[in-house]
Amino acid sequence: MNHFKQEARSGPATRKPQALRAPSILFHAEASDPDMLYFSRFQAFDPYLAFTVGGRRVAVISAGEYGRMVKESVFDEVLLLEDVREGAAKRFSLPKGKRPEIHQMALHLAEIHGIPTFRVGSRFPVGLARKLRDAGMILEIAADGGLFPERQIKTAAEVEALRKGNKASEAGFRIVAKTLAESEIRGGKLFHGGTVLTAERLRALIGHAVLDAGAVALHTIAAPGDQAVDNHCVGHGPLRAGELIVVDIFPRRIEDGYWGDMTRTYLKGRASDAQRRLVRTVKQAHKLAIDMIKPGISGGKVHDAVQAFFDKEGYETARDCKEPKGFFHALGHGVGLEIHEQPIMRSKAPFKIREGMVLTVEPGLYYPGLGGCRIEDVVHVVPGGCELISRAPYKWEIP
Amino acid sequence: MNHFKQEARSGPATRKPQALRAPSILFHAEASDPDMLYFSRFQAFDPYLAFTVGGRRVAVISAGEYGRMVKESVFDEVLLLEDVREGAAKRFSLPKGKRPEIHQMALHLAEIHGIPTFRVGSRFPVGLARKLRDAGMILEIAADGGLFPERQIKTAAEVEALRKGNKASEAGFRIVAKTLAESEIRGGKLFHGGTVLTAERLRALIGHAVLDAGAVALHTIAAPGDQAVDNHCVGHGPLRAGELIVVDIFPRRIEDGYWGDMTRTYLKGRASDAQRRLVRTVKQAHKLAIDMIKPGISGGKVHDAVQAFFDKEGYETARDCKEPKGFFHALGHGVGLEIHEQPIMRSKAPFKIREGMVLTVEPGLYYPGLGGCRIEDVVHVVPGGCELISRAPYKWEIP
Repeated sequence: MNHFKQEARSGPATRKPQALRAPSILFHAEASDPDMLYFSRFQAFDPYLAFTVGGRRVAVISAGEYGRMVKESVFDEVLLLEDVREGAAKRFSLPKGKRPEIHQMALHLAEIHGIPTFRVGSRFPVGLARKLRDAGMILEIAADGGLFPERQIKTAAEVEALRKGNKASEAGFRIVAKTLAESEIRGGKLFHGGTVLTAERLRALIGHAVLDAGAVALHTIAAPGDQAVDNHCVGHGPLRAGELIVVDIFPRRIEDGYWGDMTRTYLKGRASDAQRRLVRTVKQAHKLAIDMIKPGISGGKVHDAVQAFFDKEGYETARDCKEPKGFFHALGHGVGLEIHEQPIMRSKAPFKIREGMVLTVEPGLYYPGLGGCRIEDVVHVVPGGCELISRAPYKWEIP
Repeated sequence: MNHFKQEARSGPATRKPQALRAPSILFHAEASDPDMLYFSRFQAFDPYLAFTVGGRRVAVISAGEYGRMVKESVFDEVLLLEDVREGAAKRFSLPKGKRPEIHQMALHLAEIHGIPTFRVGSRFPVGLARKLRDAGMILEIAADGGLFPERQIKTAAEVEALRKGNKASEAGFRIVAKTLAESEIRGGKLFHGGTVLTAERLRALIGHAVLDAGAVALHTIAAPGDQAVDNHCVGHGPLRAGELIVVDIFPRRIEDGYWGDMTRTYLKGRASDAQRRLVRTVKQAHKLAIDMIKPGISGGKVHDAVQAFFDKEGYETARDCKEPKGFFHALGHGVGLEIHEQPIMRSKAPFKIREGMVLTVEPGLYYPGLGGCRIEDVVHVVPGGCELISRAPYKWEIP
């Protein structure tokens, strides 16, 4: 985590003039709140109080976590929860042995630091918000996704972390390609190491490879044949020759919480002409999109160009229904401390792509009877275009 | 996930008479909200709307997730997000192409279903709450931890899932014991497979073993010597002979999100008398606590009995300070869909232990210079006592 320390410190927290005028930010969250993780760079399992005052980041943590937080987080000051509790208990004249509630500690801290207003994210817990307001605290709620809009623009360190996340995906694809190459076809099914090769086995192999690359891939998709048409089905059962297998590996790095997100489609044996045309068309769409992505272009326009290309090639889409087919999902999305971040490249999305954004590009086509194909990479938007920050071979037909 | 289907359906959602009188529950969350996961049994990455009406559980999900949700969740009805969007857009007379906001969809659903009031958890996002209220919707906020207080009392299926979570921990301890037994001591350091055995290497081996048991252990503690005194330090660097090594494995099951949570303390080589006495005392405290735990006893009383025992044995405690030592953490905590759930067995905690609770029991002692020892198991409270739902050998001195 120290990796980010210097950079984070020269980030929003130290833009003092603005921060001094702006209301203090308040959190009560754990690291599963991506804004809190962005703010703290600290992997906490349990929610804790954190706030800004005069542009400095301050956290309140229990004795058991104190040492780790001082070492690992980017907080400028770490207060001991037990001290804050004692102060708040006095301030609110609580009977001996009675612990102050969270909102009482926040109010006590606001008084000490002369904070008149707290700014909170739209995901701030409503229960705590109500108690603070009932006690007279003014809360300013950020617009949706608004506490740190700068999260959409990745720093160099973040791009590096995301590149490493994709390296973990790549480690997964390496074992997939190797395993499929080593597999034998018997009675149409794949066999590896003497047993039937299943989607579950492939997912397990990917999990271990990803773990060795410092990340965790929880719900890896290895979906053969028509299973891939249900877009989020993780896949199960024996893998068969001649079936398209969609493999989507989105690992999260253990060290810093950044994600990788890549998809490749494979086929063991010989593909049919229809399968070859499907994969070729998706690959062309993938190139078309990457060639278009640059600062200033609208995200919706890129999606719609891919859609138009598929339409022109005769690949029909039915979306927004219970059994969608064709190209029915968004072309891509932001990725960072969340696997799905803003912005989303979907039809007519009005946002402009900006330098520093990191986006997935994942065109796909899915048809019952034929199966699915998705090819997904991650790009970093740079002046005049974008650079790939994910790498893995596109070889898909494995003899 | 289907494992829970039948039971969850005979659970709160079908207690119709009460549910009909009670306000409808509303969620906008993903599976990282444990109440949402409890309510849905569905592993969603992105937040979605879900609510109850007349005791039935209803979800709103996009086309891409529709098929998976129908198959895997416990919802009685799944609505297509695209349909709900269309309805809400009409209701609010939005211009063509403009998507309704979340609160507009919730208001539209409330109107259709005749829902006058939504009940939400204390963690419900404040931004959405404000928009709903501004539009005239009455929100009833559950008291802290209050949407599903029944989460503290585990069903048979939940106990089974937690037992499996602990089996994943056990798989980790098996590889630790084996690796330490196979290690050689050279110049005070441990060597395994020709290289220095480090905390990082041990953590990696545990990670793979846990993964093979169907779970993920993200921040496994393997803390040698004084590193264990900083209670949440995960541990790093070479392992040495004659040092206590605290190994805390808390894996989360991929399938259903339930946790295991166990700790063992090891030492390679020959322990000193002081180390032996420390480990023996912690083991005695562990037994003392497990012998006390039964329905009706106060959780604080069990913690305080352990504290008194340590005091009597001459093990001093300094807590609530920046460099705590002795027995400075809580004796145990609830565990379920969260690693740390209510109730917490800490000093003077007033709650009564109840049948069906699942609690960790984890006495520990930590002193700079001597190192730390913690022994942690998980118990299920049954009539008249408790049963262990975690198993792993307590053999700690490994020659």
